[in-house]
Amino acid sequence: MRMVDIIAKKRDGETLTNEEIKWFVEGYSRGEIPDYQASAFAMAIYFKGMTQQEAATLTYEIAASGDQLNLTEIEGIKVDKHSTGGVGDKTTLVLGPLVAALGVPVAKMSGRGLGHTGGTIDKLEAFNGFRTELEREEFIRLVNENKIALAGQSGNLTPADKKLYSLRDVTATVDSIPLIASSVMSKKIAAGADAIVLDVKAGSGAFMDKVEDARKLAKAMVDIGNSLGRQTMAVISDMNQPLGRLVGNALEVKEAIDTLKGEGPEDLHELCLTLGSHMVVLGGKADTVHEARTMLEQVIQNGKALEKMKTFIEAQGGDPASVERPETLVTASSFIEVKADTEGFVHRMDAALIGRAAMVLGAGRATKEDKIDHAVGVELVKKIGDSVKHGETLAVLHTNKDENEAVKDMINRAYEIEEKPASAPSLIYDTIE
Amino acid sequence: MRMVDIIAKKRDGETLTNEEIKWFVEGYSRGEIPDYQASAFAMAIYFKGMTQQEAATLTYEIAASGDQLNLTEIEGIKVDKHSTGGVGDKTTLVLGPLVAALGVPVAKMSGRGLGHTGGTIDKLEAFNGFRTELEREEFIRLVNENKIALAGQSGNLTPADKKLYSLRDVTATVDSIPLIASSVMSKKIAAGADAIVLDVKAGSGAFMDKVEDARKLAKAMVDIGNSLGRQTMAVISDMNQPLGRLVGNALEVKEAIDTLKGEGPEDLHELCLTLGSHMVVLGGKADTVHEARTMLEQVIQNGKALEKMKTFIEAQGGDPASVERPETLVTASSFIEVKADTEGFVHRMDAALIGRAAMVLGAGRATKEDKIDHAVGVELVKKIGDSVKHGETLAVLHTNKDENEAVKDMINRAYEIEEKPASAPSLIYDTIE
Repeated sequence: MRMVDIIAKKRDGETLTNEEIKWFVEGYSRGEIPDYQASAFAMAIYFKGMTQQEAATLTYEIAASGDQLNLTEIEGIKVDKHSTGGVGDKTTLVLGPLVAALGVPVAKMSGRGLGHTGGTIDKLEAFNGFRTELEREEFIRLVNENKIALAGQSGNLTPADKKLYSLRDVTATVDSIPLIASSVMSKKIAAGADAIVLDVKAGSGAFMDKVEDARKLAKAMVDIGNSLGRQTMAVISDMNQPLGRLVGNALEVKEAIDTLKGEGPEDLHELCLTLGSHMVVLGGKADTVHEARTMLEQVIQNGKALEKMKTFIEAQGGDPASVERPETLVTASSFIEVKADTEGFVHRMDAALIGRAAMVLGAGRATKEDKIDHAVGVELVKKIGDSVKHGETLAVLHTNKDENEAVKDMINRAYEIEEKPASAPSLIYDTIE
Repeated sequence: MRMVDIIAKKRDGETLTNEEIKWFVEGYSRGEIPDYQASAFAMAIYFKGMTQQEAATLTYEIAASGDQLNLTEIEGIKVDKHSTGGVGDKTTLVLGPLVAALGVPVAKMSGRGLGHTGGTIDKLEAFNGFRTELEREEFIRLVNENKIALAGQSGNLTPADKKLYSLRDVTATVDSIPLIASSVMSKKIAAGADAIVLDVKAGSGAFMDKVEDARKLAKAMVDIGNSLGRQTMAVISDMNQPLGRLVGNALEVKEAIDTLKGEGPEDLHELCLTLGSHMVVLGGKADTVHEARTMLEQVIQNGKALEKMKTFIEAQGGDPASVERPETLVTASSFIEVKADTEGFVHRMDAALIGRAAMVLGAGRATKEDKIDHAVGVELVKKIGDSVKHGETLAVLHTNKDENEAVKDMINRAYEIEEKPASAPSLIYDTIE
């Protein structure tokens, strides 16, 4: 085989064989196929797409390029949840204890990552003493005992994806649905999930702005998962404004705890029940989504979900008292109100800009070396549809910095206020199975 | 500027500015823009094309990436002829002396190149003593004195094209009309032509198989030339069978001499008169193509064209007696007839396969290190439209090898003979100005 022929074949819209895709992934991983051929290939895929079969094979081979977790010692159906990412998205913090309380095993591997806030690990490190460097045996024992554990990513998972993604990032070939889908799904496959619930976001703070594009991506990922024998479904949810009211690390933990108590913001509560009920069904603990939802509402009401959170935090060295009293988590030194300089109703919010504001405050990392400030972030007082009076507070900055004018300005720009009334956007756009 | 943004812009079908194209060519030439970005960019151009203005700017910047010849000391309008390449194409050998005999200055730079036969330089080296390593001063003096000189390519012409072409070759991005057109035209611009006549071939032995594709390429090149202030026109000519009857180096020189005497094969004679009359008009020596054609016919009939060939060969150290008596040029040791094993009419010829047969005999180079055998080649007795009897000679191999069965087989396969009568293909498909 010659890479130039494989590129030409894709360029001409033909379908690649499994062998050709395997040969590419293996050769590229080993450095035998140079970046300049891989980037031309990625651009050809950008224009010509991939069939369902091609995308599934690409995913399988990328998953096979490195270590693959063997979770067979964990009892039950391991259901993984993945979000394509959004601002204020703390659903993982809620869903883990929530479905674990119903006996669905949650064996979560998580990264730190770059972005407006840290990853799930960073958020949980707001609990003093919480540790995520678990040995394989401990990880498996904890899941079997408590139905939940979270470990930092160890081992060499999907090295082909890391290499290809870095290349796509600098060659304008990121925005290709089969390439995005195979990148996400290869990591889920390698991480050993039996079933996968995807939360694909659409809107101003999401990777996909349009619902139609999010639907295509969701469909591609669901097809890949099912092709590779992992039951997969996706929910398309709104990201035209941050989820909930708090953006930051300790702040998001607090809001997650509120939600586990049944006192969280409506949108976060609703999305967690939606995603959670699909997880419970895929995990074999309920027959219908309706039944699963009732069960989830019960464990919130009877305190078992919150109890599970305490068990989880304690088992990994964190202080469970902070779950009971989240006000003991780290807090910022200053609270600065961002006030409206106009009147009317909030029509749109630039969720990505709010995310950047949180990052500038120190909640997220721009580079791998950056340190995260767990205390800081943005509290959104107004959201889309709310009425606003002149001088009323739109948001509150939780900050440890002396100079916050630039961030205040970002928040102000993120709110689009118009005279006529507005309504809140839908939360769930579609479900794809 | 960032290359990833320029790639994305082209990928999205937007038009690049002159500054962006200049920045790319300069950065890529200097090695600051890596191959993996250039190849993704080339693939985006493959799919999205380039405007006339973009292609002209790309050509200009590639020409500016290296040395550019200054031919202003040569009197008159320097008209360059370029062929996209075909089997048995010896038009340059005929056209040089032919138009020079009418006072059009021919200042030709030529390479050796790879292919079924050598380049024009290799062919002329069939004349004993012929030398092409001319100093700039001698080259210019010879053109001013004789109206014709041919020099091997010296200096560092269009290095950006060399680098980009090598990359395109291994990334399936060769077949892009704006990239082909800018590659060809950048070399013509850098070589100092005032006006350019293009011979774009279409057919089984050409880069472009279909006339429609050849027309698009011709249009792109003519537009580029005219945009950059060089009067440019193109002829689309047939390459469904080799041009003339002889394929090889000394063999092609002989056929060119025959044509300068008015005794050449009809297709070669006609194509040379067509291309030549456009050269004479662009060179300002005639007002109409019709007038130019009459003038060309005169210099063939009165012997001035052949005389010019002798002057040219002698001025560069070759033996002019060989022009008078081409039978004194080097000849092969064996002549092997390839006979028909069927009857009917020649419907199609695989010109590329005949070219490869000549290369296998030693007439061309597969790698830069190969040595050329000037004597060998293929003589075509039958061409498209000819009737063939069983056992009749289709072609004669001029060979210095002991083993020729494989080549005989190639020639046999190159002829497609069917029962019903066939007619010869058109020679000239179109003229684009």
